[in-house]
Amino acid sequence: MTTTRLRGVFSPVLTPFNADLTPSVERFTRHCRWLLEQDVGLSIFGTNSEATSLTLAEKRRLLDALLEAGLPAARMMPGTGACALGDAIELTRHAVEAGCGGVLMLPPFYYKGVSDEGLFRSFATVIDAVADERLKIYLYHIPPVTQVPISLGLIERLLKAYPGTIAGVKDSSGDWNNTEAMLRNFQPQGFDVFAGSETFLLANMRGGGVGCITATGNVNPAPMVALYDSWQQEGADEQQHALDATRAVFQQFPLIPAMKAAIAWKTGDAAWRAVRPPLVELDAAQAQTLEGGLERLGFDMPYVEDLM
Amino acid sequence: MTTTRLRGVFSPVLTPFNADLTPSVERFTRHCRWLLEQDVGLSIFGTNSEATSLTLAEKRRLLDALLEAGLPAARMMPGTGACALGDAIELTRHAVEAGCGGVLMLPPFYYKGVSDEGLFRSFATVIDAVADERLKIYLYHIPPVTQVPISLGLIERLLKAYPGTIAGVKDSSGDWNNTEAMLRNFQPQGFDVFAGSETFLLANMRGGGVGCITATGNVNPAPMVALYDSWQQEGADEQQHALDATRAVFQQFPLIPAMKAAIAWKTGDAAWRAVRPPLVELDAAQAQTLEGGLERLGFDMPYVEDLM
Repeated sequence: MTTTRLRGVFSPVLTPFNADLTPSVERFTRHCRWLLEQDVGLSIFGTNSEATSLTLAEKRRLLDALLEAGLPAARMMPGTGACALGDAIELTRHAVEAGCGGVLMLPPFYYKGVSDEGLFRSFATVIDAVADERLKIYLYHIPPVTQVPISLGLIERLLKAYPGTIAGVKDSSGDWNNTEAMLRNFQPQGFDVFAGSETFLLANMRGGGVGCITATGNVNPAPMVALYDSWQQEGADEQQHALDATRAVFQQFPLIPAMKAAIAWKTGDAAWRAVRPPLVELDAAQAQTLEGGLERLGFDMPYVEDLM
Repeated sequence: MTTTRLRGVFSPVLTPFNADLTPSVERFTRHCRWLLEQDVGLSIFGTNSEATSLTLAEKRRLLDALLEAGLPAARMMPGTGACALGDAIELTRHAVEAGCGGVLMLPPFYYKGVSDEGLFRSFATVIDAVADERLKIYLYHIPPVTQVPISLGLIERLLKAYPGTIAGVKDSSGDWNNTEAMLRNFQPQGFDVFAGSETFLLANMRGGGVGCITATGNVNPAPMVALYDSWQQEGADEQQHALDATRAVFQQFPLIPAMKAAIAWKTGDAAWRAVRPPLVELDAAQAQTLEGGLERLGFDMPYVEDLM
């Protein structure tokens, strides 16, 4: 892994599928390349990547395909957490050996009400098994989905035990008070706080954070990167409001199918609509409402021809 | 798979580990054999088996070990559901080809708030991919853990689409009204309702159900089987109360570590205490409290020498 820390706007890269719902390696690679052109980092295998709907073998193949296509591992932060720690170890090791800039790690998420001691042991088991000083872990706090929070106390303990390895967090709690507490308690120790969506991008930068990792980076990257680049300048609040307005249009619908529908619309490639069960693609009426809402905002995907 | 439907008391078989937390195949096989001797069926790879903490390869090896040891596949109902449907398909296919009496299937459980349409497609994808008329699926409804309920509407739709394959349910909602609704709506169509714990064993039998699949079957099997065998006779309510009293002692603590502690105590094999993260084994004081509570009830594990 690189010694330069990851910062900026990252996106959990959507995973496009073929008609038989196998991953479309070709569309995936093109989408990753397009994101990098917009200066968006690659959080492949995140929640919005339908990563938990992919087998370990499928994830290994997709990561390998990006590397074979010459995409820079240093700009990648693959999601490697899993319920079975053996799976988490295998994918984390693969990412480290590939030179990924970091990994984004879910806690085991099946059992609920588990203790901080149990979660500490979970992360420690993976770190000790991978046993590589290049490993940089970004903890993935997303209690609305996992129902397994990563508490401030757990972070403190992990940072103390593995100071060189625990690199930061993606805070997808949606609770700004929590992000603020992470910024206050841990950012000064070099623990890098990424907001879990662009909704908190400006607030996070003002609070000393390092950027955001956001689903809608898949479809609206340019204005996010623009705000990240100029957050200290005049007009930043207006930029944030514009980002919020675009996100609100997507959030009328389940986010993953809505983003895929938007890419299908802009590229003219209907295959992009496909999602794996238990998700369901938008129907025609929903897609039309989405398109209308985005058109009213003058929504644009620069260089979309690169995706076609 | 057999044409005889599964009924009676089943247990999600605890998965014992070695000191390095690899599965102890030898203890596992002995425990399965002991359960069969008590007339308890083998729901290997359930919630209380720490199944989601096992890799797919580990589960395949454990199932194969039981078959190689000559244990009857017809008495097995392995848990085969997974977030990634590719994993669910692989393990389900393996179970069917091995001749298992049925499989217990979790829905994909990472995404929350998913639609019945998405869950229908999830089960349908597995059924269509396995494409084997021997397949008998028991739906695993355990919303306190998955947070992804299997609704009555979903069952109705699945039963209509796959009448020969959708065989029943384990209802671990803890909500008797829900079990009663399943019994009323679907048991008459041959959809077999298992209570999700022995707490509802008697009520479920009186309501027309076929038994229970229960964690504490791992440690207290004999009295459960006795109630199942004689639920129509006098004294059944007292038997149920005795079962409830024993369960209450275990439920003072997280159930999986508590059951493993009890087996370690009764067999004198301390290795039985081990759990995988994110779970944590009972500490010495907790184990002592547990043992004291069980001793006061005259708790016994018949033929425990077979486990040693």
